[in-house]
Amino acid sequence: MAKQARAIQTRRVILEAAGAVFDEFGYESATIAEILSRAGVTKGALYFHFASKEELARGVLGEALTTEGVLPQESKLQEWVDVGMVLAHRLPAEPLLSASIRLSADRKARDLFGTSWTGWIDYIAGLLVAAKEQGELLPHVDPHQAATLFVSSWTGVEIVATSLENDQTLEARIAVLYDYFLPSVAVPGALRRLDTAPDRGGRVWQAHHEHYGQERAAEPDGVLSSRA
Amino acid sequence: MAKQARAIQTRRVILEAAGAVFDEFGYESATIAEILSRAGVTKGALYFHFASKEELARGVLGEALTTEGVLPQESKLQEWVDVGMVLAHRLPAEPLLSASIRLSADRKARDLFGTSWTGWIDYIAGLLVAAKEQGELLPHVDPHQAATLFVSSWTGVEIVATSLENDQTLEARIAVLYDYFLPSVAVPGALRRLDTAPDRGGRVWQAHHEHYGQERAAEPDGVLSSRA
Repeated sequence: MAKQARAIQTRRVILEAAGAVFDEFGYESATIAEILSRAGVTKGALYFHFASKEELARGVLGEALTTEGVLPQESKLQEWVDVGMVLAHRLPAEPLLSASIRLSADRKARDLFGTSWTGWIDYIAGLLVAAKEQGELLPHVDPHQAATLFVSSWTGVEIVATSLENDQTLEARIAVLYDYFLPSVAVPGALRRLDTAPDRGGRVWQAHHEHYGQERAAEPDGVLSSRA
Repeated sequence: MAKQARAIQTRRVILEAAGAVFDEFGYESATIAEILSRAGVTKGALYFHFASKEELARGVLGEALTTEGVLPQESKLQEWVDVGMVLAHRLPAEPLLSASIRLSADRKARDLFGTSWTGWIDYIAGLLVAAKEQGELLPHVDPHQAATLFVSSWTGVEIVATSLENDQTLEARIAVLYDYFLPSVAVPGALRRLDTAPDRGGRVWQAHHEHYGQERAAEPDGVLSSRA
């Protein structure tokens, strides 16, 4: 493996370990020692990439604003559904994503690093503006207001679900969110054509990998510019 | 003041101080010393009511499941709106309420004490079952599923709002949540009659106090049995 590719992979391994530790212990109680032990890298390797716990948290949040796996769709409402469903599909297997929610909900960490929520709200609002231009949106819908409520609700579903009995996947819960949300947003003609099945995220994610004919690359793609 | 009434008031003062400290520092970093200093009571008084930080957190969560201020309504959907709007009205002024959300979202605290979310979900589901019996609900709506999504969304709106610019009150944001949620739940005839204006919570809260002809009593009423 070329030197640069190895460095990128090491950075990723460290970030994933940091994500898992932040997720489990919270920012305050997380230690570099625990992150080192999970990552299985040397102290030197970690400090080469991240000078401090603060930088690790910033790195985790920087990876969180990702639409990786979502392909452009003719219907911008379907693309919006795909963004939320793919994230719901990926999150349980990717501690980087759940850690970023935990860090954002943690007042101390949030004061230091901000959150990825404003970036998400702007991104979803952009999709809804495009949907409006295509005539997919009900006329009274304010894209920014709807995007703010949606990002808030998605986050609340994830946070509350982790405390409920594990009888439903996050994908199933987010599919319910879309089913309740969409009738207040979409014109009936657009609504009928949307696919909000709980397995939508998994299918889109798989199609993305087949499209690129490869396993998920070490380099993260689809990472939006972070506001963190 | 009678001895018992004074004890109840002291307990309340301590809980409110504990709520403010948990809210600001999180469970892990909160100290008894800080709670003492905020409450302005002696160490002896605090330990008379609460033996430990754990008991203080349990006390805070025990106060959180409250429908105080909500009067019974002919429309059970309106009563549901009132529960959410009164809480949105009260929360910014009552650290006990915001602290309980902070404690529930904190994994460490949650593992120790549970959350008040299951209690809230059961309570809202009960209102929706009553609404269904009165013919207010669309036929396909599952009360428990809708209640779970609603409590999750309400929580997410509160958590995300604290990180956004303070351009909108929590009441205005929760009014938007009802406006998007209700058309997927209510039959059109019931929907038209609902009052979801942002100032609904304040008006209901005031009517409650006029109804009882008194300022808010030291004894909390309307506290549901806690699942914490």
